[in-house]
Amino acid sequence: MAGAFLALSLGRQGHAVTVFDRRPDPRATDSTASSMNLGLSRRGLSALGRLGLSEEVMRFVVPMRGRLLHNTDGGLRFSAYGDGGILAIQRRDLSALLVDAACREPTVRFVFDTRCTGVDRDLPSASFIDPNGQSLVVKSDVVVGADGAFSVVRRHMHHDRRAEFSQSYLEWGWRELHIPAAEDGSHRMADDVFHLWPRGDIMMFAHPNLDGSFTCSCVLPFHGEHGFDSLRTVEDVESLFRTHFPDVVPLVPDLGETFLRRPTFDLVTISTAPWSHEGKVVLIGDACHAVYPFLAQGMNSALEDALELADSLAHHPTDTSAALTRYSERRKPNTDALATMSHRNFAELRDTVRSPAVRLERACDALLGRLLNDRWVSLHAMITNTTIPYARALHRATRQHRVLQGLAATAAVAAVAGIVRAVRR
Amino acid sequence: MAGAFLALSLGRQGHAVTVFDRRPDPRATDSTASSMNLGLSRRGLSALGRLGLSEEVMRFVVPMRGRLLHNTDGGLRFSAYGDGGILAIQRRDLSALLVDAACREPTVRFVFDTRCTGVDRDLPSASFIDPNGQSLVVKSDVVVGADGAFSVVRRHMHHDRRAEFSQSYLEWGWRELHIPAAEDGSHRMADDVFHLWPRGDIMMFAHPNLDGSFTCSCVLPFHGEHGFDSLRTVEDVESLFRTHFPDVVPLVPDLGETFLRRPTFDLVTISTAPWSHEGKVVLIGDACHAVYPFLAQGMNSALEDALELADSLAHHPTDTSAALTRYSERRKPNTDALATMSHRNFAELRDTVRSPAVRLERACDALLGRLLNDRWVSLHAMITNTTIPYARALHRATRQHRVLQGLAATAAVAAVAGIVRAVRR
Repeated sequence: MAGAFLALSLGRQGHAVTVFDRRPDPRATDSTASSMNLGLSRRGLSALGRLGLSEEVMRFVVPMRGRLLHNTDGGLRFSAYGDGGILAIQRRDLSALLVDAACREPTVRFVFDTRCTGVDRDLPSASFIDPNGQSLVVKSDVVVGADGAFSVVRRHMHHDRRAEFSQSYLEWGWRELHIPAAEDGSHRMADDVFHLWPRGDIMMFAHPNLDGSFTCSCVLPFHGEHGFDSLRTVEDVESLFRTHFPDVVPLVPDLGETFLRRPTFDLVTISTAPWSHEGKVVLIGDACHAVYPFLAQGMNSALEDALELADSLAHHPTDTSAALTRYSERRKPNTDALATMSHRNFAELRDTVRSPAVRLERACDALLGRLLNDRWVSLHAMITNTTIPYARALHRATRQHRVLQGLAATAAVAAVAGIVRAVRR
Repeated sequence: MAGAFLALSLGRQGHAVTVFDRRPDPRATDSTASSMNLGLSRRGLSALGRLGLSEEVMRFVVPMRGRLLHNTDGGLRFSAYGDGGILAIQRRDLSALLVDAACREPTVRFVFDTRCTGVDRDLPSASFIDPNGQSLVVKSDVVVGADGAFSVVRRHMHHDRRAEFSQSYLEWGWRELHIPAAEDGSHRMADDVFHLWPRGDIMMFAHPNLDGSFTCSCVLPFHGEHGFDSLRTVEDVESLFRTHFPDVVPLVPDLGETFLRRPTFDLVTISTAPWSHEGKVVLIGDACHAVYPFLAQGMNSALEDALELADSLAHHPTDTSAALTRYSERRKPNTDALATMSHRNFAELRDTVRSPAVRLERACDALLGRLLNDRWVSLHAMITNTTIPYARALHRATRQHRVLQGLAATAAVAAVAGIVRAVRR
């Protein structure tokens, strides 16, 4: 998506762009096929708005005005996202929209089903295998790697250089499940919220889809009592769901069989530097900063990357090297902050059910947000409802966290003083 | 070296071992050719002692009883290593000794000039290219990757798995210089010390060789005023040396030309997990934990790895999987601690000239070491003069550091109190 978005931006600037995509044309893909459901928040919307796509995208979204926590006893607890909420959108729909818009630019061309096999970073050129198994080499002024966490472009750009690189996996993975629409086409749970089943070491999420269905992500550890490797039979799966996600059991047909058949996806964090090579090769999106998906910022941050890169190229029209440097200097501190926040957020998600302190702090945070308005914005709100750069959001949240701790200490002292006074009387 | 050492250990246990080495036979290499000079300390010596090689190795070493700091004004400052010191040894000499010893085992075989190109981690097997360009595939019970920081075995063992991996480079690199022996074959500087020219962002070291020469390592940043990329002419190089390493200028023939001709080596830290795959593939040495060389522990820790792996295989003679797990569980916390200490040590080396606090703490550390004997051992002494596991050494040093800070605070309070009293009088 970030690749198609960037192609559109650069096409508007008059650049000739060819996009080679390993996958098939999203416009031709069967619309009933399963497609990942993503959260589009203010950052992504703002980037789409810059290209005049705000209205068009609204045809494909399901607005979610907050998160709905499901307890094991069937109880529900709602917490609002605030200003704007988050929009659920199918990956395929947004991809198709972007490809369609980009194709309307006369200088933009897409080549699908064509896999990148290498990059010559100094020419620069990129080589591909087309759907007939033929290899082709394409020379260009700049090669952009928007090819994901296991980027082939990155590998060739960094080969034999002093490149910083780290990949780190969670000991948790996830599987997708599907809750179909009711017979009358309606949603079988609330259709305007993000559903969340936090259970400590295991958890589940569900996004509403336009067609009345939900896409669920079931997050489990790989090993241990509730781990993927312990779930071997239909009975194992159903027993786990009956215990932890009882309200979902009647909603997923053939729950056990489906769950066992589905592939398990990993959760990886990728961090690397440099992001570019001499004004010739540059990375965007997961290729330079994959993060855990729980903050729903993967796509949003990738669209911000594309926007920043397009802006940087416009800012230095005759010096691509300066443009690529400007781009990575402006983006990397922010995506590093996003990685930090994504790590913390996963720990917090796990603790939501266990730690009253986490819940209390979040409640105070929300309360202060309402009382102090613009002068106090919770971290989640800054990430989701604003375009405040991630690094600044993290910095501000750290300061606010300290204030909350100070208030808590003061409150504790006041309480103790009150007790002492009460006892003396 | 760790590969040859392990082959010898396993040969003694009766295992059949074939070592494939990308490099030529060290016994056949021209002894006058340049060879890296390494620091052999207690850990390495102790490992060699376990195989009965303590005496043999002494034929090739130059003992260094401490470090000698060279100031820019020609002044010298000596600081003793303490118990045992460090032994300087040429890499080629130690390699030849180990290969020679291993070849005396009837079940050990070496194949040189043969490069590993891949590993099938499940068979397991390894494939190679021999000196004639022929490829061969070798099946075995266990494949050991002792193939360095950019290990081919590691890459194939981890391919498409949830492997933790990080590589991180220093913005400094190094080049080797050679100080030849005097005409009468003697050393042209003190021959029983490690020479050190710390200058903040740039530094130089020299190890004495048996033949009267010295091997110098010149460490500079890649970029900036004193960076490799600023040194373009003979005059640039000579000017840098006249300013920072004036006493070396007359000792290195054709200093400028030689320096410019030499390759620049990188300084990389590699961290990864897992270290093994199902009792079939396992990594040792730099392949699983490359560190900066300034603590002179790269070889010493690799020999400790090999010893631990051989011991673990002997400990679980019928369960290789358990043996490999035991090995990595015992070693990884220690080599992680070594990486931490290597990072800190580099920062300290840079600060040696700048920070009186660093010098003061090191002096107190040494003093307490002398006063309290066994109950207080400086971190450097624990690393160099003992076989205390690295993780325990780091833990103990952290505790000692806190005590020193406490003493410093107490001393400061006492001093202030003294001043107050003096003023009152």
